[in-house]
Amino acid sequence: MRAKGIRAALVRARLRPVGVIRSVLKALRKAPKQGSEGAPDAWLEVHPSAAKGLQGLAVGDEIIVVTWFHRARRDVLRVHPRSDKQNPLTGVFATRSPDRPNPLGLHPVTVRAIDGNRLRIGPIEAIDGTPVVDIKPVISRSDR
Amino acid sequence: MRAKGIRAALVRARLRPVGVIRSVLKALRKAPKQGSEGAPDAWLEVHPSAAKGLQGLAVGDEIIVVTWFHRARRDVLRVHPRSDKQNPLTGVFATRSPDRPNPLGLHPVTVRAIDGNRLRIGPIEAIDGTPVVDIKPVISRSDR
Repeated sequence: MRAKGIRAALVRARLRPVGVIRSVLKALRKAPKQGSEGAPDAWLEVHPSAAKGLQGLAVGDEIIVVTWFHRARRDVLRVHPRSDKQNPLTGVFATRSPDRPNPLGLHPVTVRAIDGNRLRIGPIEAIDGTPVVDIKPVISRSDR
Repeated sequence: MRAKGIRAALVRARLRPVGVIRSVLKALRKAPKQGSEGAPDAWLEVHPSAAKGLQGLAVGDEIIVVTWFHRARRDVLRVHPRSDKQNPLTGVFATRSPDRPNPLGLHPVTVRAIDGNRLRIGPIEAIDGTPVVDIKPVISRSDR
């Protein structure tokens, strides 16, 4: 019973990617630190198994794409912001460092185009291959 | 090797709660659907193992608390928004339904007070016991 409960809890809190970022940004060192800092548009390819979840999204919508920074370090609790040693050590919860216990990225973007289960979105600083775990409307409309 | 790789991937994408919501809201049916709809303030208790990550947060800061809706259904891709059958079926990615493949909640809140590793925050509609997986500043300051 106990092992079953632990396994169930593990499965419950395990993220299952619903899509992936396809971007011209291939390397972390070339990626801007924020989408507003000259990042390109990219494609968000939603996996066919999750495509029904897109119903109702439209070109022009402002959405938040939630990514999983699969290359991040999870054992980091304090950083020098913007990787600048001149900046004093700061708790990761007061920064947008990708290195943090649960390396989730929040990316406010605009939907530029929709092509089947692919969304053209931007600007977004996530690199090619970054897993997407959720998509949310920025503003909760009364009819949603 | 293969099993090791699968296990490693599982561990990498597994969320580890960094804290928990302590709220007067005890039941889902009593919780407002959004923080702006009359939700109370609550305590965010950060686990001692993650407390160093709070360094630099201050009273008055606007933050986004990321929760894991541990009671949500993960097999839902379309919903009647706001649980109202009058609303047409809509993809979960166009709604804020807690039922979704990865039931992450984004809660924009204000830090009202800080007491050691506990933050008084609000307004927030998450119920008592909801796991917290991340905390982020709303605005990325140039010095962060």
